[in-house]
Amino acid sequence: MRALNSKEVNSLRLYPDPECTSLKEKMTRYYGVLPENIYLAPGSDDVLNFAFSAFCDSTTPAFFPDITYGFYKVFAELYGIKYTEIPLREDFSICPGDYYGIGGTIFIANPNAPTGLALSLDEIESILINNRDNVVVIDEAYVDFGGQSALALIDKYDNLLVVRTFSKSRSLAGARLGYAFADKKLISDLDLLKYSTNPYNISRLTLAAGEAAICDNDYFESMRQKVISTRERIYNSLCALGFDVIPSKTNFLFAKNNRIDGGKLYAELKKRGVLVRHFNGERTGAYVRITIGDDNEMDILIQKIEEILEETK
Amino acid sequence: MRALNSKEVNSLRLYPDPECTSLKEKMTRYYGVLPENIYLAPGSDDVLNFAFSAFCDSTTPAFFPDITYGFYKVFAELYGIKYTEIPLREDFSICPGDYYGIGGTIFIANPNAPTGLALSLDEIESILINNRDNVVVIDEAYVDFGGQSALALIDKYDNLLVVRTFSKSRSLAGARLGYAFADKKLISDLDLLKYSTNPYNISRLTLAAGEAAICDNDYFESMRQKVISTRERIYNSLCALGFDVIPSKTNFLFAKNNRIDGGKLYAELKKRGVLVRHFNGERTGAYVRITIGDDNEMDILIQKIEEILEETK
Repeated sequence: MRALNSKEVNSLRLYPDPECTSLKEKMTRYYGVLPENIYLAPGSDDVLNFAFSAFCDSTTPAFFPDITYGFYKVFAELYGIKYTEIPLREDFSICPGDYYGIGGTIFIANPNAPTGLALSLDEIESILINNRDNVVVIDEAYVDFGGQSALALIDKYDNLLVVRTFSKSRSLAGARLGYAFADKKLISDLDLLKYSTNPYNISRLTLAAGEAAICDNDYFESMRQKVISTRERIYNSLCALGFDVIPSKTNFLFAKNNRIDGGKLYAELKKRGVLVRHFNGERTGAYVRITIGDDNEMDILIQKIEEILEETK
Repeated sequence: MRALNSKEVNSLRLYPDPECTSLKEKMTRYYGVLPENIYLAPGSDDVLNFAFSAFCDSTTPAFFPDITYGFYKVFAELYGIKYTEIPLREDFSICPGDYYGIGGTIFIANPNAPTGLALSLDEIESILINNRDNVVVIDEAYVDFGGQSALALIDKYDNLLVVRTFSKSRSLAGARLGYAFADKKLISDLDLLKYSTNPYNISRLTLAAGEAAICDNDYFESMRQKVISTRERIYNSLCALGFDVIPSKTNFLFAKNNRIDGGKLYAELKKRGVLVRHFNGERTGAYVRITIGDDNEMDILIQKIEEILEETK
């Protein structure tokens, strides 16, 4: 609220800085990367969209897991890019070896959604080493909740694009701010698309909110720790209710209960005013994805699940 | 400032409404169109980008004037779309007949930039009648400063897309908000692109600022009248200083003075802290484009021009 002050509002008659100089300076200090290694966008979907447009074409197909962020397929279909969905292992983990020398652009959400599982930095590096001529996009939307970031590898691998967002761990989904870290050549490809479509694509208010968020590290740390501790508490509660819960590195839990199908649990919770997500599919249909909210919201969730399980006895 | 209140800031943890329901409702009342005839975007460049992507392809080329908004060419080149630049008449006006039955998608800025000249509604309608199988995009970024809007024609012509912005007459360039009016089939094409790339592309803060702007009609009317009256005053001042000034329907003036080349005048003004725009080109090089600012800014401009003309005597 302090960042969105009358000075900012009075400046709304002027176009924003298309180079986002001030926010990039703050991110440079915070993340220890140069401005030329940062790309900013109105949401990480916008970065991913440009990554599909820039780094895939008729001779460069896309590869991503069969169970992952559903939008990868949408981007590929929009641009008419051939894509292959690589099956996760039986336990929903990604097998790094499946991606070695694959001959196309790789998109991996790490941690993955909706499973919540993460690859280690060594596993990510093994994919990069074995794809020196392919761009590897690591989508770290959820990394702050327990994953290991590949940011440390951008100086070593010029084929790595690390995609991030202010929507999850910085609680700014409504402000629309995403970003990417990479070698300056990949960043300049994204910039070329931006300057050919909508150069002033991030509003002054969003830039101001982003700067305020980066500068308030104490709040950021306390909130993500809070999400992590609530997640662990709910993990235990769900296990106690007979759920199989995948250990999560994100701000959600992917869980199933043999007593009730995922679709049915979704519908019963919705009836009671609680919204979780359900993904149709042979391997995902039994599960629901539960986003971690505040303690009160999570207590209501557990109470409603108890009711539903009681009724289905 | 009142619109960007603590309730909005507290809601920033939540994604914005991708359908922009509340802003569309207010626009529905203000403009007398249905929500299904409105498309909203983070800036009118974003609408134009999607229009090139959706309504042009390898068999549907683009047509626009040779002197107009410079970005049309950039979009066409990005998508590899063939385009033809149709020469303006000697007096910089658009000849409607040049566009009849043209066999491609037409992009016309009305009023045009940087000339400031406008086509009448009848002339726009003649282009629509003679292109029933082509999409006609009328870019009305500057229409509120004196042009006639083609909005009235969207019910009659399903091949018309009217593109608008909050950046000029609503003084919100920094908030990034553009829009379009059209038959619902054209709108749904733009929606398809939005929902395939970045569905949450407008921030909550921008939506709130847009609603506040639409609701404050008195301010809007007084500011655009102020721009128009300042423009007329400066038009007369420039004429008195020996400039040829094109009568403008926009918030800028396109003017030349036989005593000094456009590029030279641009450079001399810049040295003195005043920024105007200069466009290289056989027909535009003699001119500068002067944006209308407040009275104090414009008085400084006139004073600096007097100095420069005195020195070049």
